[in-house]
Amino acid sequence: MSKKLTSRSEDYSKWYNELVVKADLAENSNVRGCMVIKPYGYAIWEKMQAELDRMFKETGHQNAYFPLFVPKSLFEAEEKNAEGFAKECAVVTHYRLQNDPDRKGKLRVDPEAKLEEELVVRPTSEAIIWSTYKNWIQSYRDLPILINQWANVVRWEMRTRLFLRTAEFLWQEGHTAHATEKEAIAETELMNDVYANFAENFMAIPVIKGIKTETERFAGAVETYCIEALMQDGKALQAGTSHFLGQNFAKAFDVKFANKEGSLDYVWATSWGVSTRLMGALVMTHSDDNGLVLPPNLAPYQVVIVPIYKSEEELDEILKLSKLIISDLKAHSISVKIDDRDTLRPGAKFAQYELQGVPLRIAIGPKDLQNNTVELARRDTLSKESVNLDVLTPTIQTTLEAIQLNLYKRALEFRDSHITQVEDFETFKDVLETKGGFVLAHWDGTAETEKKIKELTKATIRCIPYEAKDEEGKCVFSGEPSQRRVLFAKAY
Amino acid sequence: MSKKLTSRSEDYSKWYNELVVKADLAENSNVRGCMVIKPYGYAIWEKMQAELDRMFKETGHQNAYFPLFVPKSLFEAEEKNAEGFAKECAVVTHYRLQNDPDRKGKLRVDPEAKLEEELVVRPTSEAIIWSTYKNWIQSYRDLPILINQWANVVRWEMRTRLFLRTAEFLWQEGHTAHATEKEAIAETELMNDVYANFAENFMAIPVIKGIKTETERFAGAVETYCIEALMQDGKALQAGTSHFLGQNFAKAFDVKFANKEGSLDYVWATSWGVSTRLMGALVMTHSDDNGLVLPPNLAPYQVVIVPIYKSEEELDEILKLSKLIISDLKAHSISVKIDDRDTLRPGAKFAQYELQGVPLRIAIGPKDLQNNTVELARRDTLSKESVNLDVLTPTIQTTLEAIQLNLYKRALEFRDSHITQVEDFETFKDVLETKGGFVLAHWDGTAETEKKIKELTKATIRCIPYEAKDEEGKCVFSGEPSQRRVLFAKAY
Repeated sequence: MSKKLTSRSEDYSKWYNELVVKADLAENSNVRGCMVIKPYGYAIWEKMQAELDRMFKETGHQNAYFPLFVPKSLFEAEEKNAEGFAKECAVVTHYRLQNDPDRKGKLRVDPEAKLEEELVVRPTSEAIIWSTYKNWIQSYRDLPILINQWANVVRWEMRTRLFLRTAEFLWQEGHTAHATEKEAIAETELMNDVYANFAENFMAIPVIKGIKTETERFAGAVETYCIEALMQDGKALQAGTSHFLGQNFAKAFDVKFANKEGSLDYVWATSWGVSTRLMGALVMTHSDDNGLVLPPNLAPYQVVIVPIYKSEEELDEILKLSKLIISDLKAHSISVKIDDRDTLRPGAKFAQYELQGVPLRIAIGPKDLQNNTVELARRDTLSKESVNLDVLTPTIQTTLEAIQLNLYKRALEFRDSHITQVEDFETFKDVLETKGGFVLAHWDGTAETEKKIKELTKATIRCIPYEAKDEEGKCVFSGEPSQRRVLFAKAY
Repeated sequence: MSKKLTSRSEDYSKWYNELVVKADLAENSNVRGCMVIKPYGYAIWEKMQAELDRMFKETGHQNAYFPLFVPKSLFEAEEKNAEGFAKECAVVTHYRLQNDPDRKGKLRVDPEAKLEEELVVRPTSEAIIWSTYKNWIQSYRDLPILINQWANVVRWEMRTRLFLRTAEFLWQEGHTAHATEKEAIAETELMNDVYANFAENFMAIPVIKGIKTETERFAGAVETYCIEALMQDGKALQAGTSHFLGQNFAKAFDVKFANKEGSLDYVWATSWGVSTRLMGALVMTHSDDNGLVLPPNLAPYQVVIVPIYKSEEELDEILKLSKLIISDLKAHSISVKIDDRDTLRPGAKFAQYELQGVPLRIAIGPKDLQNNTVELARRDTLSKESVNLDVLTPTIQTTLEAIQLNLYKRALEFRDSHITQVEDFETFKDVLETKGGFVLAHWDGTAETEKKIKELTKATIRCIPYEAKDEEGKCVFSGEPSQRRVLFAKAY
């Protein structure tokens, strides 16, 4: 059905782009920088949404919905935030089209329908949400507000790549309001933990939790917490961020509350988000030269059944058996699909499901019918075994669990073997060039050094890991004293 | 907590606007015509989404996501569709803001960052989707395509009302592609049935299924199917539409397929949608002068428990008992919330849950503890009874079912008593003015008559009901011959 995938070693970037399209996850649209998320890709995103949404609700959050548009005057209220996003904003200036008098059947913008105030298509929603919270908060009794929204946002990126960087993307953004600094920081940390938990237990992606440097901080935040993952090509990917916003937005929008003592104070804020970018991380962490590899916890279907037959009678028998298998798997909450199309040969079906990363494939042929067996193939290891029908469902259950664990373990081993501790700048550059991955090195704490290192190596400080121990040392670049190592990498 | 609601008889429109805000469903935002959907309102929308999504999947549809923006050249390709929406489009013309040299700290649109081609914020997605389907469809083997998308859309309405008519709203839009006309029509009808089923069984709203006249048809459709509901003020509300698009979009975007016989043919299309407008229909069908009334099948929580106590000891005992009740209700898939806030008196809590339409309220006081009972209050009838703990869960189960049925029955009786068959135009006008509701009358089939009737009475033809029998008659306005009655009403 499809020509062979470029291999990862040949061209990782090309492999990724091809895989996303061939596995039917997404494709570029007719709109510059915007993607179409195809049903198979969207089904994975829906699984992610469902798990995250459950975790948000379990931690006391509710969903709501705020406008797509931000009036320019609100957008510019928090100056740092505005400055951070101003250069990549889609701006609505008119509200009507009209027939083009010069070109029959064509339309043009109606010059009479110019908006008094331009509307920015939200690149993030702090401004619109805090201008709303202003009316919701009078007293400490109105706090905390713990709200999340699932939405589309637009950032006019010049160089785009499917899932990783697109002009429009889907995400969730949590926006919370608190009476105290302590409570807001606890919320910021809690949500970073939720993201780490989701990444590790559902996406099977090990992550490093840490704090961003000032340079890498979210525009308008006091502190940005993040989780960083490592892709197979040795580049890092920021998989989620949680921001402690201090009182910046409360001050910008004048949101004060009467505290328990009766005096007025500005409200403390957090925001946190993950996006369809996670789809890119999922692809680049587990997949191989044969295509996608999906963790069972996020696969649209965990098992696919492919019948192998010559006669109609054989097919009938196989379908009868499949029905029993499917009903038993579903009763055990295992999702399964049967592919009984007569327009494709089994080999082509095998190739398709390999490409699409279905965790387990069952093939049933005439010999299996005789022997009371099926052939069970694992996508992660590409291994096959013959399994007796009597133990099929429990075997599948344990194998799915084993795949989920194996993917995590494999990714963790790769990640851990790609964290290199270095002491001097020559080795620093050398490791980044040859081995790739994370580099743990001392840094003097200045934005200037950070910038120079980036210019020379393209590596940025991904985070100051939670786990970074106090350790006297000298900056790998400037030789100035440093208290702890930070995590460098080239990144997506 | 809130001043008394305006009564329906006093001012229905004001009652609605107040209720939506006071019940915490939604509010107007700082963006002209756009609303904020608040957590309680959004929780109802999520329930609607979950049920509809399940029904779409059960009928073979998959979700996907297409871009927010439609380039002008694609937007104008299907001329009727473009003409229908051109007058209410938000248009993106620029992709960057810059510091305003004349106003420190302020931003302005960067004149250098003008788009070569303007982007329309989707008012509906036929254009962007059919320009995509073009690449997906070569042969009959690629058909049918059965896709739905949950998305936000923008129509620049001049007069807006929360949920009923907003510039941005949330909806789902199904877009399907078929090899034959017959199959596409069957799909159109199927999805109209799905909507009717959802309206009646979940929203408890009786609907009339029918077909729109040419005047009222979706721009670009060959035939529009719809479900029409009746609000308490005697005005109709279109609750869902399903469009048979013929080959209009396939022709506009040149989407052909090789059929089984090997010749090329244009693809047949449908589209169908419901939106957050349904929230308005829900409010206006069941609610009363005390506030919202929610059908149990869509209530964010079906039961609320309010403790009534004087001492801490009493509270402790009540909370202990509540815990048991909650655990048993949850085990029976009944959603329940306890309100143990010590900042509000029971009376204020009662008023809040009445306003917010929680189907059942449990009050537990010291006497109840002695008697092994609780007080159970129904929101729909405002009746109360004392229920023994031994039968509480089954009583709640049957009462929730009874409420769901009662709401439907009440709405059906109201609707049926407000369908009036009329023969002459004087009675027609009189019924619309005094009684309101649907009027079943003969119509000569011309757009001209339809228009004149609308000018004179504000009533439009809501639909030609599926159930309309062949019946010789004379047009209520022109006296010309007519074959069947159609359904008129003033409408939202």
